[in-house]
Amino acid sequence: MSHPFEILAQDGAARTGRLVTPRGVIRTPAFMPVGTAGTVKALSVEQVRATGADIILGNTYHLMLRPGPERLTRLGGLHRFMGWPHPILTDSGGFQVWSLSGLRRLTEEGVTFRSHWDGSSHVLTPERAMDIQADAIGADIVMQLDECPAWDAPREAVAESLRLSARWGQRCRARFGQRERQALFGIVQGGIHADLRLESAQRLLEIGFDGYAVGGLAVGEGHHRMLDVLSSTVPHLPAERPRYLMGVGKPIDIVEAVVRGIDMFDCVLPTRAGRHGQAWTDDGPITLKASRFAEDESPLDASLECPASRGYSRAYLHHLVRNHEILGQVLLSWHNLAYFQSLMARLRDAIAAGTLEGLAAEFRRRQPAG
Amino acid sequence: MSHPFEILAQDGAARTGRLVTPRGVIRTPAFMPVGTAGTVKALSVEQVRATGADIILGNTYHLMLRPGPERLTRLGGLHRFMGWPHPILTDSGGFQVWSLSGLRRLTEEGVTFRSHWDGSSHVLTPERAMDIQADAIGADIVMQLDECPAWDAPREAVAESLRLSARWGQRCRARFGQRERQALFGIVQGGIHADLRLESAQRLLEIGFDGYAVGGLAVGEGHHRMLDVLSSTVPHLPAERPRYLMGVGKPIDIVEAVVRGIDMFDCVLPTRAGRHGQAWTDDGPITLKASRFAEDESPLDASLECPASRGYSRAYLHHLVRNHEILGQVLLSWHNLAYFQSLMARLRDAIAAGTLEGLAAEFRRRQPAG
Repeated sequence: MSHPFEILAQDGAARTGRLVTPRGVIRTPAFMPVGTAGTVKALSVEQVRATGADIILGNTYHLMLRPGPERLTRLGGLHRFMGWPHPILTDSGGFQVWSLSGLRRLTEEGVTFRSHWDGSSHVLTPERAMDIQADAIGADIVMQLDECPAWDAPREAVAESLRLSARWGQRCRARFGQRERQALFGIVQGGIHADLRLESAQRLLEIGFDGYAVGGLAVGEGHHRMLDVLSSTVPHLPAERPRYLMGVGKPIDIVEAVVRGIDMFDCVLPTRAGRHGQAWTDDGPITLKASRFAEDESPLDASLECPASRGYSRAYLHHLVRNHEILGQVLLSWHNLAYFQSLMARLRDAIAAGTLEGLAAEFRRRQPAG
Repeated sequence: MSHPFEILAQDGAARTGRLVTPRGVIRTPAFMPVGTAGTVKALSVEQVRATGADIILGNTYHLMLRPGPERLTRLGGLHRFMGWPHPILTDSGGFQVWSLSGLRRLTEEGVTFRSHWDGSSHVLTPERAMDIQADAIGADIVMQLDECPAWDAPREAVAESLRLSARWGQRCRARFGQRERQALFGIVQGGIHADLRLESAQRLLEIGFDGYAVGGLAVGEGHHRMLDVLSSTVPHLPAERPRYLMGVGKPIDIVEAVVRGIDMFDCVLPTRAGRHGQAWTDDGPITLKASRFAEDESPLDASLECPASRGYSRAYLHHLVRNHEILGQVLLSWHNLAYFQSLMARLRDAIAAGTLEGLAAEFRRRQPAG
């Protein structure tokens, strides 16, 4: 059964709404912090929740290696394991098999790979991806298994890959079935080719999913190619179901994608940048290590409710970063998530008010895409 | 002016009381978490406070290198810089000059040393130690500059060293003067020699301090030699002033020192152990990485109020530690501080109830000294 998706307002192609799951309402456009291995890195679930996150993302690849699906099943699933009672979406594992693991072997049946931790061998098929995500992890939103070719792979390889992903999507749909409390999303592939994206979308629509993701972007093709793909692809996705742009992105990427009708996002950027001493602001990222912050008594952003954003001087954060203190990583990760969530709230408000173009223009001016 | 020290109850040589500072009351026996470089490692000040800490310790050595006394002065002192409005005690810097820095040169005047960070040259004299601690940092309790010889140094070297430390103590007293809102503690040295400890104590008493620390212990001499020194030294310290055992220690060390009349402690153990995957319990430390915790759904200690102690399963903490997740370091540091603070509360309650010997016997049985 699909999670009910209620669109509250539209502004051009953009929409704001509510995706209603048994574990809670997801306000869209939504940003999902990435909880790679059962933890949004450096933060407690209370801190993540306090930033305004309605849903987090878990990485199937990491969780199937540690703690492993059998152990997760015995421990009652991921929500209970990590103490996050709100919605969780899991990726399919496919992307990280391609980006992290060694010795991959791809067949029609699925993919065999070796763990980047200990070299142990694992198999991921569409059926196993469903069993792990839906049963062992217990995700509220489950992603089909897909293959992710390089963005600049030969056109014919991209075409064959999207057809394999579509066949895998069919098998995922069959294995997943219809569930009372969980939804299954398909993933549109097709690289930078508008006609292949359309073919992929049509194949997925024939199968029928509870939501549609755009995959294979933010993998090196660049901001403008990504927007071109969105502009040509999103109109072919059903308006009444949520649309999710996987692995994106910087604030300006998110703003432009929302303008084009995307509802959901995930990205490691805010937490990764935080661990590396960067704080996001309306004028882009700042590097706290820089000497100019050594005696700057202003907070990162006093307009945010987040204690990390308003309760510490830049001078103190500079000191923590320079001394490689864990607290610096915690506070900057926390602030960055709060900043991204505040961005989503501003986007939702702007769509409801019909002022999205003005907000987008401000971001294009202050945070131009590189 | 001395901070008023009110003894509420005694049980044998042990006492429980209140050391009253303008920034707050310190309940004794007290454990001071170590905030080395302006942060109790991995934790926010709110988390530290919530464990029950009345006072934290700052390391003068680290703070004089980064952010440096001039910058700290411009930033309004350490309380404001790190956002901890409660009492702070600073060590003199002497111990870490000896243990961390390179190329030390000791004279009657003071000590010249090179930073372990960047090799820059610095001078610490008794007068400068006072200026940094009392004025730049703004500590509520300031420690005299002392020299810390090796515990097994030749007796004559230890004797000469304690006399140098006493002369430095005299100069600290002169420079510090009498202050409305801050107190100055002397440090008893003398190694493992009872007569030298007595000589050191007598020299400090002639100068007159607001409290008396026992230094030069927990530096390799072992549990039993340490207790022998306390048993012979503490009776010579004035009953009406607080007594502070520097750098100690494990719970059993703290219990035995309280039995012998010590009022204050500091140690990096709880936070350092937490960063290395260890959690302290009434039965000693446990190593969360061990496989036996992989599916243990019990919390670390449900009897503690601390969220880290009661809100996460050992299985989840095991997973975090195995994956080198920052959250594991945060939660274990937090729990350990909560455990140490609960130990202090139990000691205070036992002294008030006249049942300290029973509590001590339980610790001797369950956490025997190594």
